[in-house]
Amino acid sequence: MTLIRHVLPVILSGGSGTRLWPLSKRDLPKQFLPLISSRSMLQLTLERTAGIPGYSTPLIVASEQHLDIIERQVVGAGIAHAGIILEPVGRNTAAAIALAALYSDPDDILLVMPSDHAIANPKTLLDAVADVLPLAEQDCLVTFGIAPTAPETGFGYIKRGAALIGSAFQADAFIEKPDATTAASFLSSGEYSWNAGIFLFRAGLYLSTLADLAPEIYSACAEAVQRGRSHAAGHFFPEAESLRRSPSMSVDYAIMEKAGHVAVRPIELGWSDIGSWDALTDYLEKNGDIVDPRTLVIESRNCLVKSHGPKVAVVGLDDIIVVATNDGVLVMPRGQSQRVKEVVERLDEEG
Amino acid sequence: MTLIRHVLPVILSGGSGTRLWPLSKRDLPKQFLPLISSRSMLQLTLERTAGIPGYSTPLIVASEQHLDIIERQVVGAGIAHAGIILEPVGRNTAAAIALAALYSDPDDILLVMPSDHAIANPKTLLDAVADVLPLAEQDCLVTFGIAPTAPETGFGYIKRGAALIGSAFQADAFIEKPDATTAASFLSSGEYSWNAGIFLFRAGLYLSTLADLAPEIYSACAEAVQRGRSHAAGHFFPEAESLRRSPSMSVDYAIMEKAGHVAVRPIELGWSDIGSWDALTDYLEKNGDIVDPRTLVIESRNCLVKSHGPKVAVVGLDDIIVVATNDGVLVMPRGQSQRVKEVVERLDEEG
Repeated sequence: MTLIRHVLPVILSGGSGTRLWPLSKRDLPKQFLPLISSRSMLQLTLERTAGIPGYSTPLIVASEQHLDIIERQVVGAGIAHAGIILEPVGRNTAAAIALAALYSDPDDILLVMPSDHAIANPKTLLDAVADVLPLAEQDCLVTFGIAPTAPETGFGYIKRGAALIGSAFQADAFIEKPDATTAASFLSSGEYSWNAGIFLFRAGLYLSTLADLAPEIYSACAEAVQRGRSHAAGHFFPEAESLRRSPSMSVDYAIMEKAGHVAVRPIELGWSDIGSWDALTDYLEKNGDIVDPRTLVIESRNCLVKSHGPKVAVVGLDDIIVVATNDGVLVMPRGQSQRVKEVVERLDEEG
Repeated sequence: MTLIRHVLPVILSGGSGTRLWPLSKRDLPKQFLPLISSRSMLQLTLERTAGIPGYSTPLIVASEQHLDIIERQVVGAGIAHAGIILEPVGRNTAAAIALAALYSDPDDILLVMPSDHAIANPKTLLDAVADVLPLAEQDCLVTFGIAPTAPETGFGYIKRGAALIGSAFQADAFIEKPDATTAASFLSSGEYSWNAGIFLFRAGLYLSTLADLAPEIYSACAEAVQRGRSHAAGHFFPEAESLRRSPSMSVDYAIMEKAGHVAVRPIELGWSDIGSWDALTDYLEKNGDIVDPRTLVIESRNCLVKSHGPKVAVVGLDDIIVVATNDGVLVMPRGQSQRVKEVVERLDEEG
């Protein structure tokens, strides 16, 4: 199928988590790290649509403090050019997408993607975009839904309704972080997908829906863009004072859960949010190598061994996660990586 | 008991092992590391006799490449002065002690100590020296023998013979690295001590015995000292060409196993050669803390966690050894630290 008009990739790079300490830090969040390849998660996201017919130059929405690293990574990814909207303050995904939509033409079709998720089968995404482009053009907010593989309680779920064109379905409900029993019932019913935060919609439709359902976000962002300043290099700086007035809300909560014209397109992406060391280990076991080739692993099984600095040697261990940088070293059994939060809290307390 | 003449501590600092990788390296061997306290093993060795009546300024025999670090550590230990014999080439302990003996007065009583062993009860050593000083003055080569606590196959054993004065015994035999069955029988017999490389003897007696039993070592060392040069700071540089001619032999093999006038004084020192990460862990469990206070250890038991660099966090692990520097990180279960050798070999292969 040939695309009628170009799709504009919008890459959200506002995350600032520390769940992958010691690699991820507040000034070097996950999207900038080479976690599943020699290229960073942001670079892999940029490469998904780079040079693909039907896709235009990507637009990155990021914190202004990350301008330097983003510019380096765009060049390093071999991307000729990317627009960058530099947020002076983070206001969550509803506002970030609004800034991108306001900066675009209302008729642009935006493909919104997080910058820090892994997709093993990017071709599948491009095919699905082609399938549902008519839906997006017919003023539907399309989400791509991942087939759940476990009763995860940390994700959002989307319930399928009536079938639409392009192998999509009407989205009947969005359920954020269900309890374990509910998650298990969602998994067994086969009617639910995980919400991976990947969307396709017309910029103008997003903005009109936002103006309707979350007018404070809309007006703050509209003013921030109106009063913003462009930079010759293709950087856009929304005005800080206006943006600061925007409520901080996820696009799911502000729009998707409430809008009436939402579709879900189930998709098999080999997706992971790489939300923890365990998630990364699981992903790499399926799609790569859990042992960093620069490390030395002797008579050990199922260990994630990563180093961005010191030479790491692991001997005689099973099911252990070892991650080292010049600043920090983490050693823990697999299955406990939610406890990195505790480590970071303790380190914060110590200063 | 009052000492008649001063005892001269001779500290052998020629070791260059890598069994404590990543902390110990060829240019920073074990004796210079703060393994069991905030002071290095060399500093703790210097402090054993510092300011103790009856002991003179220590004499260190070391590799000339370590001059700078030794000078810094002598100052750091608060030692007013130490003589340093700087070997241009290592020729094992028989030659190192010969250099010290040749540099001393023949009637000096030398207390020879390795620079890299831990002694939890240094006072016991001083008391034992006082006990056996008459034996040393009566031209006996006295060794201090550690009560074995396990059938170690990596140590040398000394068999006790007839009782002498000062709670010492005639040394009937030296057995280097027995097999496991023999080691077990030594342990159960109660007649054997470990050879810890701590000796007390008159300088002149050592030299005459060496001239008798290992004349090539004696003559090479005598010439190296005769042709050597002194430095105003109390450093002595034996001449390289002569020293290079000396056979490389341990004092045990060259002298102790063969001489007829050797005594063994059993002693309870709380001794460890800190010859591996497991040995250090065992020592610290008895005499210190196996968790470095600068590290973060959450819900873990019996783990040795040490860092000379990155912040190390260990979560939910038992019986693991984690050692980190800015250059290297080692993670292994306790009981396997003899395999560090393998790690270092592999790293050497990689360059």
